[in-house]
Amino acid sequence: MSADAPGRAGGQAPEELRPILDAAGEQTERMLAETELRLARIAAPTELPGGAGELATRAGATLAAGGKRLRPLLVFLCGAGAADPPPAGEPLVAAACSVELIHMAALLHDDVLDRAPLRRGLPTVFATDGRDAAVSTGDHLFARAFGELAATGHAGAVQTLSIASSALVRGELMQRADAWSADVVVARYLERCELKTASLFETACRLGALLGAPGPGAADRLGSFGRQIGLAFQILDDVLDLAGAPGQTGKRRGTDLLDGTVTLPLIYAREESTELAALDLRSVTTPEQAESVCATVAETAAFERATALALELVADAKRGAASMDLDRIEVLDLVADSVVARVS
Amino acid sequence: MSADAPGRAGGQAPEELRPILDAAGEQTERMLAETELRLARIAAPTELPGGAGELATRAGATLAAGGKRLRPLLVFLCGAGAADPPPAGEPLVAAACSVELIHMAALLHDDVLDRAPLRRGLPTVFATDGRDAAVSTGDHLFARAFGELAATGHAGAVQTLSIASSALVRGELMQRADAWSADVVVARYLERCELKTASLFETACRLGALLGAPGPGAADRLGSFGRQIGLAFQILDDVLDLAGAPGQTGKRRGTDLLDGTVTLPLIYAREESTELAALDLRSVTTPEQAESVCATVAETAAFERATALALELVADAKRGAASMDLDRIEVLDLVADSVVARVS
Repeated sequence: MSADAPGRAGGQAPEELRPILDAAGEQTERMLAETELRLARIAAPTELPGGAGELATRAGATLAAGGKRLRPLLVFLCGAGAADPPPAGEPLVAAACSVELIHMAALLHDDVLDRAPLRRGLPTVFATDGRDAAVSTGDHLFARAFGELAATGHAGAVQTLSIASSALVRGELMQRADAWSADVVVARYLERCELKTASLFETACRLGALLGAPGPGAADRLGSFGRQIGLAFQILDDVLDLAGAPGQTGKRRGTDLLDGTVTLPLIYAREESTELAALDLRSVTTPEQAESVCATVAETAAFERATALALELVADAKRGAASMDLDRIEVLDLVADSVVARVS
Repeated sequence: MSADAPGRAGGQAPEELRPILDAAGEQTERMLAETELRLARIAAPTELPGGAGELATRAGATLAAGGKRLRPLLVFLCGAGAADPPPAGEPLVAAACSVELIHMAALLHDDVLDRAPLRRGLPTVFATDGRDAAVSTGDHLFARAFGELAATGHAGAVQTLSIASSALVRGELMQRADAWSADVVVARYLERCELKTASLFETACRLGALLGAPGPGAADRLGSFGRQIGLAFQILDDVLDLAGAPGQTGKRRGTDLLDGTVTLPLIYAREESTELAALDLRSVTTPEQAESVCATVAETAAFERATALALELVADAKRGAASMDLDRIEVLDLVADSVVARVS
């Protein structure tokens, strides 16, 4: 149930964020471009000592594989606040790089633990360069994330990032501890998603507030916004994994089942279906078996119920944002909606 | 050639630091005790969400396994400067915890990459709980390291730690890239040791200066002191691996050879011995073969030459420290000497 897993994330390339970028204005787009440049520089061979140039290649490939850059975007949008244009980009760009680097490092280590061959349709570092390279490259990106943020001189921001990084690790660990378990209840699932996904979304928004125009006073409320849409993002990601992404029929679904990852739609479906309730997840070992479980889940109201919960979270996030004195609420609304757009 | 590898480090337990602690004074000892408490608290189950309690157990065991706490000691000694007693402990304790956590995280990940069964004579997290747990626990400690330091509010300190963390990873990677290579020259070996070991020693001293009484002005010079004794520490560690620790005859030596790690004594020995120069390290696969190579190295002047280089570094470090206006020079001297004492 990794966010941004291959295939699932493919449906929302940066170009699909165009309406958001247009609404956000030129300055945001410039800062996103600067973020890309800086991420590329962090992985540049010149940064690395002789012989570790290989690391550069690997990290570069990983960063270049891209992604939606949703977390950097949240930093910039929350950092802009009521100011138009947003404040000078330097600390915000550093913050954007730092959250994206933590995200990338976590994905690298996930791929090691999952022995994943592909990510976003490209071979993983784990697959091409092996476990050692993937662990080390992840560690490198992790260290650089804190370095980038520390360069802003804002220790509170670094502490915020550290809390999110710890949460992310604990969420990953919880997911592995609960693998194949029949006892994962909704509260437990939500706790895991908060740790694993929502926390870094929250941090992106908090960092924007702390380092940008809104200031520390807005950090809690913008953080809540991020937390809620992060949670919705993960729930919908999990729905898409079992339901199949719209317009991608024929594509394999149910990779979470093969990993033993128990997600919300499955928990809901087990409440309705005695067949699913009796199912030992360890017996699901082939894509065909996974497909068959997905089909049974689809016969229940599980996808609708999970989607409804995500929509509720997004609506609540938007209400919270609307109550704040920020000019760019409409752009935050568009981001919140973009999370939902993936299942519509 | 990991610093603090089992057996090698066993000869220098914290009790062996007694002369240093006596010279340093009560305050330093109190701060070391506080560091232990805080490290234990960082791994306490109450810090972790339900179900991730297992992580606590593992991290707790890893931290409890202890070590020399040489890096925390350097933080306190360099932080004390001319002040007697040293400044109030809080930021220095945070810094000491942060360097030790980075060190522990690196060891955890090393054990994964090395598939190491033992560390300091105890089973590794990798051995008892598996690869996933060891990677995650390492990530957790890594994140907490930055959190601890960020809590001091000193962003420059966090940046310093980040640089050392990056260096450490690159050093690890360089070691793996060079494994079994016949082309590792002295300069390359030293570069690797600087990245892998000296950089964190340097950072411990720098953090002491930055957060303690000496202030930022003394950071470069105290950093040099740390860097030099760190480099000496690693060289002597590598000598002990091939020469065998004094008083530990009969104990297996040459684990670095079995890992394919090319260290300074081997490089020197190859210059003298045509037999060693012709040796393909990949053919050394049993402890008996490793022992035989160690015996051949011992017939050359390699151990003496490597030890001489380390002694020179320590002497230079002491000269540099003596030129500074610090009251506690004699304690720093004792620390520098303790690095050497392991081979005498």
